[in-house]
Amino acid sequence: MIRREEAVEEAAAGFRLADLPIRDDLRGKTPYGAPQLDVPYALNTNENPYAPSEELAAALARGVADVARGLNRYPDRDATRLRAALATYLGHDLDVREVWAANGSNEVLQQILQVFGGAGRTAMGFEPSYSMHPIITGVTGTEWVSVPRAADFTIDLDAAKDAIARHRPDIVFLTSPNNPTGTALPLEVIREVAAVAPGMVVVDEAYAEFRRENTPSALSLLPDHPRLIVSRTMSKAFAMAGARLGYLAANPAVIDALQLVRLPYHLSAVSQIVALTALEFSDELLGAVKQLRGERDALVAWLRDHGFTVADSDANFVMFGEFTDRAAVWRGLLDHGVLIREVGPAGWLRVTVGTPEEMSAFRDALLRVTADLPAAREQHDETAGPGASGSPGA
Amino acid sequence: MIRREEAVEEAAAGFRLADLPIRDDLRGKTPYGAPQLDVPYALNTNENPYAPSEELAAALARGVADVARGLNRYPDRDATRLRAALATYLGHDLDVREVWAANGSNEVLQQILQVFGGAGRTAMGFEPSYSMHPIITGVTGTEWVSVPRAADFTIDLDAAKDAIARHRPDIVFLTSPNNPTGTALPLEVIREVAAVAPGMVVVDEAYAEFRRENTPSALSLLPDHPRLIVSRTMSKAFAMAGARLGYLAANPAVIDALQLVRLPYHLSAVSQIVALTALEFSDELLGAVKQLRGERDALVAWLRDHGFTVADSDANFVMFGEFTDRAAVWRGLLDHGVLIREVGPAGWLRVTVGTPEEMSAFRDALLRVTADLPAAREQHDETAGPGASGSPGA
Repeated sequence: MIRREEAVEEAAAGFRLADLPIRDDLRGKTPYGAPQLDVPYALNTNENPYAPSEELAAALARGVADVARGLNRYPDRDATRLRAALATYLGHDLDVREVWAANGSNEVLQQILQVFGGAGRTAMGFEPSYSMHPIITGVTGTEWVSVPRAADFTIDLDAAKDAIARHRPDIVFLTSPNNPTGTALPLEVIREVAAVAPGMVVVDEAYAEFRRENTPSALSLLPDHPRLIVSRTMSKAFAMAGARLGYLAANPAVIDALQLVRLPYHLSAVSQIVALTALEFSDELLGAVKQLRGERDALVAWLRDHGFTVADSDANFVMFGEFTDRAAVWRGLLDHGVLIREVGPAGWLRVTVGTPEEMSAFRDALLRVTADLPAAREQHDETAGPGASGSPGA
Repeated sequence: MIRREEAVEEAAAGFRLADLPIRDDLRGKTPYGAPQLDVPYALNTNENPYAPSEELAAALARGVADVARGLNRYPDRDATRLRAALATYLGHDLDVREVWAANGSNEVLQQILQVFGGAGRTAMGFEPSYSMHPIITGVTGTEWVSVPRAADFTIDLDAAKDAIARHRPDIVFLTSPNNPTGTALPLEVIREVAAVAPGMVVVDEAYAEFRRENTPSALSLLPDHPRLIVSRTMSKAFAMAGARLGYLAANPAVIDALQLVRLPYHLSAVSQIVALTALEFSDELLGAVKQLRGERDALVAWLRDHGFTVADSDANFVMFGEFTDRAAVWRGLLDHGVLIREVGPAGWLRVTVGTPEEMSAFRDALLRVTADLPAAREQHDETAGPGASGSPGA
């Protein structure tokens, strides 16, 4: 008999993913995820650079100590206290029955697709947009229909209505502010899409708190639209990416529907108390958001001043370009210890807004890299907006 | 314009779940979940009655304090430290590449069904068994094939082979120890099912640590069976139902496959540190498991001494009967402050093994209720085993 260690090696070497009877539509796919590299400046996953304060960290530890003695029991399956606190935070007179929470907005979106999507059903998105939308759509066996955004990354209402009439999607994703472009949608677009969509309309507002002044949230449309869902996350504005807490607001009937597919006790007692505690620190955390919005606007201005094309941003990241060889620019920045994201339409790159120090490192590195790689940088008429860049691609 | 509060009421009253375009196969279903009632003796969800110690609670708070300052960053997407610790705990020379973890074993099972099931595919189980298996199967669009267990709640190998040959299931669920019957499977049954099953074989060992002496675990079969998966949970033996941490062991290729459908960063940094900390207290926690096994065996003996029929149990619960009106017995116990579970084959009830005090309250209540309800209790030849009860039904 061979030793166990050798057996593991042999099993690992001799038996591969391709040998397993996985679903045909998953064959050849690779797991989603940005590289998790250890770099001085990680500006690639739209994290909030401001760590929880000592006070918040201490409050989190106290909260967990409080629930720890009851961890042998299942958590509140309905997360009632947390959902009530989220409703209060969202405002718009929302009620606990109109809010639902899960392990990250990805799980919220997956539950939506499990109830309203599935085999024989269709979800539609306007791309470039958040790449998890088509991935979760595919995992739930739902067909994905991609509609291109306009050249300036907005959604052309006529094109949207036309695509909806043609495909009759069961779910329409509207992302506002959009990732990776940063583009927010006018309420009128959301209202008109909701009016013609035959099924559910999901407005993914993961970056809502970073909106510029006077940019609206779709929350105000909920009373008139029982098939509208607004999803949010505590990963970004609340600086809780590590705590995995996503949520949504919708008609109470939608919350009832989600309970048909949610895994029982999906949200741990620890996740519930961590999120509740973070919500108590809203003022502190949203103060940092205000700072990041200022930093974002300054970055957009600086990039434009230096001749880069920049998409307007209502988020905590900025998409800029255009480069004939964006991969070279991305690698050059990484050589300077700055990790950004090679994502979105060809020629563009996305950088997360960080601390003043991180932004300074990014600016310095970008100037050096583009000076070293003149060929990678396209020459543009600096008066042209992002609309001059042609098709955004996917 | 009507006031917002009225608008909510109107929306809630005027628009219902049935008005939403949910999947046809979900229509008329109700969410899974035992009642969460506030009673003196909650013996209905197979929780571990022993709360984490002061020392463990303090260690959990320290652990969370440590990770709190980094919660603005995404967690380790691969949960490498936790998976390594789980591999060490499981033994059998398992390696980090052979272990996967998620938010409760329900999420582990859902990921398995998302990779290996889906529309046009089939999962098979031997019922009565854990009711979440067919529910998660349905949510993922997979067809469920139910094969009845033998009258003594074991799996008849010839019947199993016959059903597998007939249905060619993509996934076979073997639950050992089985919920709600408590029945463990001989390794031979698992080995022979794995030999003939065309797809994946999942052994759900949620209650593994409560096995009686000499009852085997399917972990020992993994080296020879690359399509075998053994799932576990920290909810039961580790007294961490509130922390939601499930995991599995399988060939590394299976772990690779699961990564195709797992939501990125599905497991929070807090969940990872909570589970790691609990694993450091294995000795303490498994000491309580030993105590519960003794309490379980005493309960089985007491029930038999008092003329009840009892299914052999390798778990932290006991299924007993048989009653002509089990609902009346269940309600009678609840009137005495004892909440158990009306689940499993007709005529049987399931009680979770608790502390000596809880078991004493249960025994007293059961004697009173059955004395008050003589008609609810069937007369049996006390020498008959559970096999005398006829078909277990579903």
